[in-house]
Amino acid sequence: MNALTDRLVGTPVLPQPYVLFLGDVTFAGFAKTAFGLRDWAPDKCVGEIRLAGATVTTGLEAVTAAEARARGARALLIGVANPGGVIPAIWRASLVEALEAGLDLIAGMHMRLSDIPEVAAAAQRLGRQLIDVRVPPTNIPIANGRKRSGKRLLTVGTDCALGKKYTALALADAFGARGLDVDFRATGQTGIMIAGGGVPMDAVISDFEAGAAEMLSPDAAASHWDVIEGQGAITHPAYAAVSLGLLHGSQPDIFVVCHEPGRTEMIGTAGYQLTSIEEIVELTTLLGRRTNPAIRCAGFSFNTSAMSAAEAAELMASESRRLGLPVADPVRGGPAFDALVDSCLA
Amino acid sequence: MNALTDRLVGTPVLPQPYVLFLGDVTFAGFAKTAFGLRDWAPDKCVGEIRLAGATVTTGLEAVTAAEARARGARALLIGVANPGGVIPAIWRASLVEALEAGLDLIAGMHMRLSDIPEVAAAAQRLGRQLIDVRVPPTNIPIANGRKRSGKRLLTVGTDCALGKKYTALALADAFGARGLDVDFRATGQTGIMIAGGGVPMDAVISDFEAGAAEMLSPDAAASHWDVIEGQGAITHPAYAAVSLGLLHGSQPDIFVVCHEPGRTEMIGTAGYQLTSIEEIVELTTLLGRRTNPAIRCAGFSFNTSAMSAAEAAELMASESRRLGLPVADPVRGGPAFDALVDSCLA
Repeated sequence: MNALTDRLVGTPVLPQPYVLFLGDVTFAGFAKTAFGLRDWAPDKCVGEIRLAGATVTTGLEAVTAAEARARGARALLIGVANPGGVIPAIWRASLVEALEAGLDLIAGMHMRLSDIPEVAAAAQRLGRQLIDVRVPPTNIPIANGRKRSGKRLLTVGTDCALGKKYTALALADAFGARGLDVDFRATGQTGIMIAGGGVPMDAVISDFEAGAAEMLSPDAAASHWDVIEGQGAITHPAYAAVSLGLLHGSQPDIFVVCHEPGRTEMIGTAGYQLTSIEEIVELTTLLGRRTNPAIRCAGFSFNTSAMSAAEAAELMASESRRLGLPVADPVRGGPAFDALVDSCLA
Repeated sequence: MNALTDRLVGTPVLPQPYVLFLGDVTFAGFAKTAFGLRDWAPDKCVGEIRLAGATVTTGLEAVTAAEARARGARALLIGVANPGGVIPAIWRASLVEALEAGLDLIAGMHMRLSDIPEVAAAAQRLGRQLIDVRVPPTNIPIANGRKRSGKRLLTVGTDCALGKKYTALALADAFGARGLDVDFRATGQTGIMIAGGGVPMDAVISDFEAGAAEMLSPDAAASHWDVIEGQGAITHPAYAAVSLGLLHGSQPDIFVVCHEPGRTEMIGTAGYQLTSIEEIVELTTLLGRRTNPAIRCAGFSFNTSAMSAAEAAELMASESRRLGLPVADPVRGGPAFDALVDSCLA
């Protein structure tokens, strides 16, 4: 998976390895980005920096900016978010200290690093980069629909925020473990930080959405796999434009539908019922055929984190019988997940 | 249709009436915007300004900037485009003269008015506006999918550039002629200039695409019609994201499919065959149902400009029988177009 940055022509390549910055975080939910980095890119993380008052930890060793630099870190990565996306004043001295220690800064919050005067001034004085992973590249072309070489898998979903990134990472890992040549292609902030590159698809101007997806997974060797992180849902009243542009531009050979059993309404909408799994399969096939007539569904990834192991196993087995394809929870792994991987590679 | 600007909360409202600027244009195809304004908003155009060497005219009276201002013009509107979207140096003195005469400037070219130093300086000195209709509003919300009051019609297409704007304008006119309360909702540059407001949907960030469409056609009286200009095509490999966001956010009750008989390949793609009319009806209904379960196709608008009157009439009659709904060319009008309007209002 680490070859990604070398292939992503035109997309930002992040300076690595990182030191993870946790600020003064006291709620684990706000540190999701840091946990994602720890879980999926441990070889790219030299430690964590916490301020006084922080109660959350990734379990990585606590270091200073200077110690991180001495361990080879090239950037401080802000691994926490708060609801407003603001960078609090009490973080700022640490950010300047990191710049002075020789680190670039990477963030994906609503507030831009360059909008903090003392941070911007220090970066300019020291010749360091302030990188916002929410900013798409400026050289995205209009899509042309030309069939590209290599194989592609896209994770899609019955809604937002139910495991499309996790599933793509787990499948890319499993493909790699079977000796295949594979790249994880990131389309959201945390994914981009993990991969070290990618395109924040939701921040791309609509006219260029499919073009950005084409750029994200360029021509590759015939046996090479791109495993592409999905976004939104094709039936989400707010985000379907993102999903369709990504689907068309990715021209996937295979898709895996991600779903959270028990979720009944779509996130952020006025009471919209979740679309059924079968309808997502039907619509994704119908629309995806436009740029890849051979598109097929390989199976289903369930987020069963709210269920007991026994409940999850029973549900996945019965749903697999009903749907006629493997159903697995990549967090639980096991034979069900192996069967899903088999189906992808069949 | 003129009530549009009053309803479009948050979208730019252009200063009107205009004087149309033709520069030194010698190819009528480059003056499409000016012709569109002349044809669809004659009451908003006080005349035209041409430079020496121009051989194209809208037929409106040639005036100076000062004369235009004396006739009530509030803005000079650049009604020509060239392939590069550049504002030539020889236009600039005229643009400054217009600012000095008391006019704002409106453009939709690739090059920004504010990037021309002498124009930017004059506008600042005089307190005039430089308006780029390609720039979307900054206050677009994420869509919520809530059902809005009032009725909506969206024009969709089998491809780009085959009459979706023209059809929407003609239908809005026809609805008005029947005494209905109607607004044309513009989604592209020329449409926005004609309407005096709107949202350039292809320039909106993907995450906000459906939200922009919701903003464009707000709650209205139960009997009120919004006739919304479509963009792209739901099966266009480059632009489908724009089309789907617009479809979801518009939540149309009715759609009319625009088509150009004889066109076989989609514009700008690597040999993609045009999608069939029936498939566009099927996909638009399937996807549009998500935000408006009552969506229906009311008929078809054919661009028959390349055909003789007899050929066009014969084709439209046979296609109408085959498809089971009215087929009309709004440019030709006549009983076929009346039947299409009847079907929309049925």
